Amino acid sequence: MNNERKQTRIAEIGEFGLIERLTQHIQLKNKSTLKGVGDDAAVMDYGNKCVVFSTDLLTEGIHFNLMYVPLKHLGYKAVIVNLSDIFAMNALPRQITVNLALSGKFSVEAVEELYSGIYLACENYGVDLIGGDTTSSLTGLTISISALGEADEKDLVYRSGARPGDVLCVSGDLGGAYAGLQLLERENEVFKVNPEMQPQLEGYDYILQRQLKPEARLDVVNAFEKLQVKPTSMIDISDGLSSEIMHLCKNSKVGCRLFEEKVPMDNQTKQMAGELNINPLVAALNGGEDYELLFTLSPEDAEKIKNDPDFTVIGEITEASEGTNLIATGGSAIPLQAQGWKHLED
Amino acid sequence: MNNERKQTRIAEIGEFGLIERLTQHIQLKNKSTLKGVGDDAAVMDYGNKCVVFSTDLLTEGIHFNLMYVPLKHLGYKAVIVNLSDIFAMNALPRQITVNLALSGKFSVEAVEELYSGIYLACENYGVDLIGGDTTSSLTGLTISISALGEADEKDLVYRSGARPGDVLCVSGDLGGAYAGLQLLERENEVFKVNPEMQPQLEGYDYILQRQLKPEARLDVVNAFEKLQVKPTSMIDISDGLSSEIMHLCKNSKVGCRLFEEKVPMDNQTKQMAGELNINPLVAALNGGEDYELLFTLSPEDAEKIKNDPDFTVIGEITEASEGTNLIATGGSAIPLQAQGWKHLED
Repeated sequence: MNNERKQTRIAEIGEFGLIERLTQHIQLKNKSTLKGVGDDAAVMDYGNKCVVFSTDLLTEGIHFNLMYVPLKHLGYKAVIVNLSDIFAMNALPRQITVNLALSGKFSVEAVEELYSGIYLACENYGVDLIGGDTTSSLTGLTISISALGEADEKDLVYRSGARPGDVLCVSGDLGGAYAGLQLLERENEVFKVNPEMQPQLEGYDYILQRQLKPEARLDVVNAFEKLQVKPTSMIDISDGLSSEIMHLCKNSKVGCRLFEEKVPMDNQTKQMAGELNINPLVAALNGGEDYELLFTLSPEDAEKIKNDPDFTVIGEITEASEGTNLIATGGSAIPLQAQGWKHLED
Repeated sequence: MNNERKQTRIAEIGEFGLIERLTQHIQLKNKSTLKGVGDDAAVMDYGNKCVVFSTDLLTEGIHFNLMYVPLKHLGYKAVIVNLSDIFAMNALPRQITVNLALSGKFSVEAVEELYSGIYLACENYGVDLIGGDTTSSLTGLTISISALGEADEKDLVYRSGARPGDVLCVSGDLGGAYAGLQLLERENEVFKVNPEMQPQLEGYDYILQRQLKPEARLDVVNAFEKLQVKPTSMIDISDGLSSEIMHLCKNSKVGCRLFEEKVPMDNQTKQMAGELNINPLVAALNGGEDYELLFTLSPEDAEKIKNDPDFTVIGEITEASEGTNLIATGGSAIPLQAQGWKHLED
């Protein structure tokens, strides 16, 4: 008896066959989507709304490791990364496109598995898949997803609006995605040495979910609307808190004081950091991939969110001349350092 | 004395340094561009126009060979490919984004050279570069470009509007890009055997330009407006005439008769085909990358373009039951075959 799922070579059904198989069940949900898959370009009508657009590129071996990232999770996360950028403008995503470059090692079923995660994200966030490009690569998998969204011009929040006296806030908690990645890397190394060993992942469900199946903060954008809060500036945390704070401050021409003891971290993140013998604050400051929202509020707006446990005030905006500093628990000021993505520097 | 241009490793200036260097001279030209590079997402206001969106992915070794494609030309062509899709909707492009994945072999200067072609295309077609993503890859170069454009809803032309009795037309001439590619491949093989040999490219400037620096047909879309012509259906020729005709007919639920002797081809294309001992018609039908526009016109609209030497009537639309046929010079009907892209089938 053969329990293996059938594997179909892409060559058997061809490029057009593959695209048809992947897109045959699409049902468009947004009234702004006039034309989706199937023409030279997609067509949208946003009425009198502004159009918000973001795009990203993920490559195998750099952004993901298929040794331990399931394809469905990868598809889901690839969408989330872009939706997070749309939310960081205080806008709502409506459409995505998916470009894939696939090497010969991927079967039709593998691509369908990847797409099942993409469609799940579309379902969960109410966005339409409207097109893309599926082609081949000499080695590995490359995914480029783009997202289109909409907002009234008056609601848009840029990186450039923070003012001295504003309060610096963050949603959720930080460092978890990095801690989850370190755990997966560690168990993968163990597996490479001894494939009989079962990975030790118990008790770390939260940080694994933060790494493998992150969510984007639609609920935060909805909360702002409900509470009638408009951040003065906002950015999503993809590269790490330190780097994102420096972007906000540079764009807004301000400085800031970030209080070490205020940075929200989950217990699993702290525990994993302990096992790895690193300071958990490093995971929060430089780890990245948390997809939380970092934003600044006027003191009046800060009053409106202070009882929401999902938001944490982590610092204050100052004049640019004071610099961007981490205020350590002991009270000393340490200049923040932007790490950015290190891939290009290897 | 060292005449070599200085090569800077990307690691020396980092990701943010590279992006700043590549985008520092951008001046936005379109009033629809509210926010370009530098935030989580770009923002556009199209007023009451529809938004048209297209995206593409090009990978090294599949879509281009850096042995003979200069980086500047590659950047230019990568933009053109997407603009062509926007024109094929009878729309006008306004913005593009550029995603790059680079392996360690590329210097800052090499990326700047690629961008110089991207910016030249932006300049020539009046579009704004509004963002993107620059990251690393384990091997080779991947480019994903997206284009946003606009049109009044009434002006949009889909693949689905062709009707029996319509006239099938094409702009420019076909097969040249394929002939140019074959020439470059041949000379590259010669070079690999004997690097001292100078490539034999004289007299083939036109087909080389068709392959290395194609243009997208903004002038055709402008001509339609001037002549008050609205095609009933349209598609751009990226995969080859045969495949595109079959897309148009399938989407429009019609058939067609394509007349062999009407297919426009340049003399250089025919000459190169002769040297390669292939039928030039094969280059036109299956070669691809010509980025001409294939469209159908009502008989009344066909009257308006008949004196324009840049348009050629190549066939007629029939009932679907008659199939999609090539009518050979001798009069016999041969069913067209879609080739599509063969990369995924290798």
